[in-house]
Amino acid sequence: MKWTRHDLIGLDELSGDEIRFVLDTAEGFREVSARSVKKVPALRGKVVVNLFFEPSTRTRISFELAGARLSADVLNFAGSSSSTVKGETLNDTARNIQAMGVDIVVVRHPCSGAAHQLTQVLSAAVVNAGDGSHEHPTQALLDIFTIRQKRGSIEGLKVAIVGDVAHSRVARSNIWGLQKLGAEVFVVGPPTLVPRGIAKVGVHVCHHLDEILPEIDVFNMLRIQRERQDKVLFPTTREYARLFGLNGKRMERVKPDTLILHPGPINRGVEVTPDVADGKQSVILDQVTNGLAVRMAVLYLVGSSPVEPSVGDSDVAQPREDAL
Amino acid sequence: MKWTRHDLIGLDELSGDEIRFVLDTAEGFREVSARSVKKVPALRGKVVVNLFFEPSTRTRISFELAGARLSADVLNFAGSSSSTVKGETLNDTARNIQAMGVDIVVVRHPCSGAAHQLTQVLSAAVVNAGDGSHEHPTQALLDIFTIRQKRGSIEGLKVAIVGDVAHSRVARSNIWGLQKLGAEVFVVGPPTLVPRGIAKVGVHVCHHLDEILPEIDVFNMLRIQRERQDKVLFPTTREYARLFGLNGKRMERVKPDTLILHPGPINRGVEVTPDVADGKQSVILDQVTNGLAVRMAVLYLVGSSPVEPSVGDSDVAQPREDAL
Amino acid sequence: MKWTRHDLIGLDELSGDEIRFVLDTAEGFREVSARSVKKVPALRGKVVVNLFFEPSTRTRISFELAGARLSADVLNFAGSSSSTVKGETLNDTARNIQAMGVDIVVVRHPCSGAAHQLTQVLSAAVVNAGDGSHEHPTQALLDIFTIRQKRGSIEGLKVAIVGDVAHSRVARSNIWGLQKLGAEVFVVGPPTLVPRGIAKVGVHVCHHLDEILPEIDVFNMLRIQRERQDKVLFPTTREYARLFGLNGKRMERVKPDTLILHPGPINRGVEVTPDVADGKQSVILDQVTNGLAVRMAVLYLVGSSPVEPSVGDSDVAQPREDAL
Repeated sequence: MKWTRHDLIGLDELSGDEIRFVLDTAEGFREVSARSVKKVPALRGKVVVNLFFEPSTRTRISFELAGARLSADVLNFAGSSSSTVKGETLNDTARNIQAMGVDIVVVRHPCSGAAHQLTQVLSAAVVNAGDGSHEHPTQALLDIFTIRQKRGSIEGLKVAIVGDVAHSRVARSNIWGLQKLGAEVFVVGPPTLVPRGIAKVGVHVCHHLDEILPEIDVFNMLRIQRERQDKVLFPTTREYARLFGLNGKRMERVKPDTLILHPGPINRGVEVTPDVADGKQSVILDQVTNGLAVRMAVLYLVGSSPVEPSVGDSDVAQPREDAL
Repeated sequence: MKWTRHDLIGLDELSGDEIRFVLDTAEGFREVSARSVKKVPALRGKVVVNLFFEPSTRTRISFELAGARLSADVLNFAGSSSSTVKGETLNDTARNIQAMGVDIVVVRHPCSGAAHQLTQVLSAAVVNAGDGSHEHPTQALLDIFTIRQKRGSIEGLKVAIVGDVAHSRVARSNIWGLQKLGAEVFVVGPPTLVPRGIAKVGVHVCHHLDEILPEIDVFNMLRIQRERQDKVLFPTTREYARLFGLNGKRMERVKPDTLILHPGPINRGVEVTPDVADGKQSVILDQVTNGLAVRMAVLYLVGSSPVEPSVGDSDVAQPREDAL
Repeated sequence: MKWTRHDLIGLDELSGDEIRFVLDTAEGFREVSARSVKKVPALRGKVVVNLFFEPSTRTRISFELAGARLSADVLNFAGSSSSTVKGETLNDTARNIQAMGVDIVVVRHPCSGAAHQLTQVLSAAVVNAGDGSHEHPTQALLDIFTIRQKRGSIEGLKVAIVGDVAHSRVARSNIWGLQKLGAEVFVVGPPTLVPRGIAKVGVHVCHHLDEILPEIDVFNMLRIQRERQDKVLFPTTREYARLFGLNGKRMERVKPDTLILHPGPINRGVEVTPDVADGKQSVILDQVTNGLAVRMAVLYLVGSSPVEPSVGDSDVAQPREDAL
């Protein structure tokens, strides 16, 4: 296969083959991170800008290190989130950055569709590091990479995504990616956190975690955004933990080779108890390690693709957030 | 010509030949930015510190990238603006940074004269990235570079600087630089924003933009600082735009080869309407691109000059702000 | 001697020989900073993370430059200080960072014992850049390096540490280090700022600076934390300066080869008057310059030591803060 995409906006638009190609490329880069000299000259002289309109130290550092390992120059630009996706500030900011000769723009933005919008105005490659509740493709790719690494294949696995599915770009990207690789996806949470009609995209909907414990191969425990608690989407974090948290007792009913994922940072005692987070079925730190390899692969692929304007590129799908 | 200056504080102190020498050097570096591997080893092992006492992501990133392309190590130091130009904190901070073996200090400070003051205490090269309402030499150099690139020469051009001339270091640096290269400079704005007596430095003063539209070759539209609005220097931004903004209607009276510049970030609909900002006479993004080449040239020239203390260097002029 | 330590947590745990070994290594690196190309490939491809839970631009920049000169990739991570040393956030944050393949974690944290705690959970090397009021070993090493550089040897010198000894990690690290190299240490300050019982660790306690002026070889003037003033530990900064500040008049009673040190940033007119800070007996800027060499040495030594988990490493002493 040959990589032909100029940008990475979401897994919704990728084919199964393309996803597998990114994972295979990441496999190669994982080896670089294990070396004593953790550097390859792949993107030497290229410039990557982290354009973050939402704070996220972990994701930013992961991209920063991934760029450094490819020998790119990586700059951080903390944008003001006061700009809206429709507003001109985002476009003007991005065009200004591009005018400085930037090759890849990694963008995080509170508005769904922001990353896609940038592809319309930039000739630099755009990588979506999370846009609103739309997609967070590199997170899903590292989740899937980790599952494949531990289980050999995604095909036929039963994967449960547990928590605030309604507001989660991580959930969305995982659903598209996992389905394309042949997994059976369950979304689990209280009715307030699972969007109505999501069954239409082919996932199982479940409101009681205990019902599915014995049959699931992978639990991906979404982080609870404590700031959303005020909106009374669930009574208390204690109540949430009681109903949807993984603890030692629930783990007794889970298969011994079932994996526990969490995108981090963990609220210990809420989504997972400490014994589960640090237990032998947890692959949470593997996810972080693999994130670097996956982001190296993504930066490498979009940074090596011919730099052509993608303006009006008709095969870039519109955000499918509304569909949920 | 041979470059002999240790610092770059303002265009007031440069000769026309020196300005042309910077522009010619930048011409060479523009080519580097067009390469696939955008790097030259010119400043390898040298250290550049961005010492910014005012926030400015764009200028900081432009210097950061310029340094990276010259293979320098670039560090960012966000200083507290609580120190005054007379206070000891600025000197102590700068001397501490220098003691770490820094070669070039790029300084931005809210007080006029701060950059000049640093040249008195540092042996490292000092580059002024904007000091109060005194000078912003690299901005003017990139403006002039862009005009020269598009029009071939500065000599004889009629350049209008429109807006808050009174408080603008960009205006000041442009006036000195443009005059030295033979341009005829017009300053345009309401009487509250144009300093009394500025005609003495040889510029035309004009309070009605419409009067001069047909004869001007270059409009440099200064950014309106919205925070200054409270001081009733002009009634409203709407009123400002009506009197001093460039819009499609005014463009009809402008010559077809007249250039529109803006130092950014644009307040769209205030200084320029979107159609003008994005129109074919706008060179606003060219300015950003050229800014990188100009800053590479400046860092290269001061970074390669013999590192001698400039303390008491008698040919460094005192800030000429009061003269206006 | 061969360096065998995986981490650097404090001088309390180092032997005199180990301290001398770091100083000798720093001697070699001082030469690198004097070169035109200030770089050696010692840590190329290694990753250093500055994990700072307290703001400190100077120390952070010193480590950042030290890493850059060793050709390491250096990343900054400004952690939230809301996490406690017992809390899980610090451990989780550090383990996440380590999972990205980081080789050295430089940590600053408001809680005493935080750096030691990280050695229990990380296999990456940990360098303490200041933990609560426990230790700040690289500051003491650069102080001692500077004294040795100017006076040839530490053995037999009388060193006075003046100021808020009770809350100072700088004081603590200096006491351990200086004693191990054979200096006689005096701690000087009002009874509110000198911990009761400190004489037990073998230092002289003195409450009147004037009494010891003629016999001291080195004054290390601790920075007054103005925010602590409210706690009425001393009446006013003016009163503090009158009793414990070094000024021109006191310098007349000091030996001509006595050195004045200050960890910076200076409160001019409080701990030292400007004439003393800038006088010929002051080595304050030498400390900054030497800090870079010392930190290069420390990063080099821990970065080159075999990367083995130090979990349960029994020869790592517990913080000795309580002993004071």
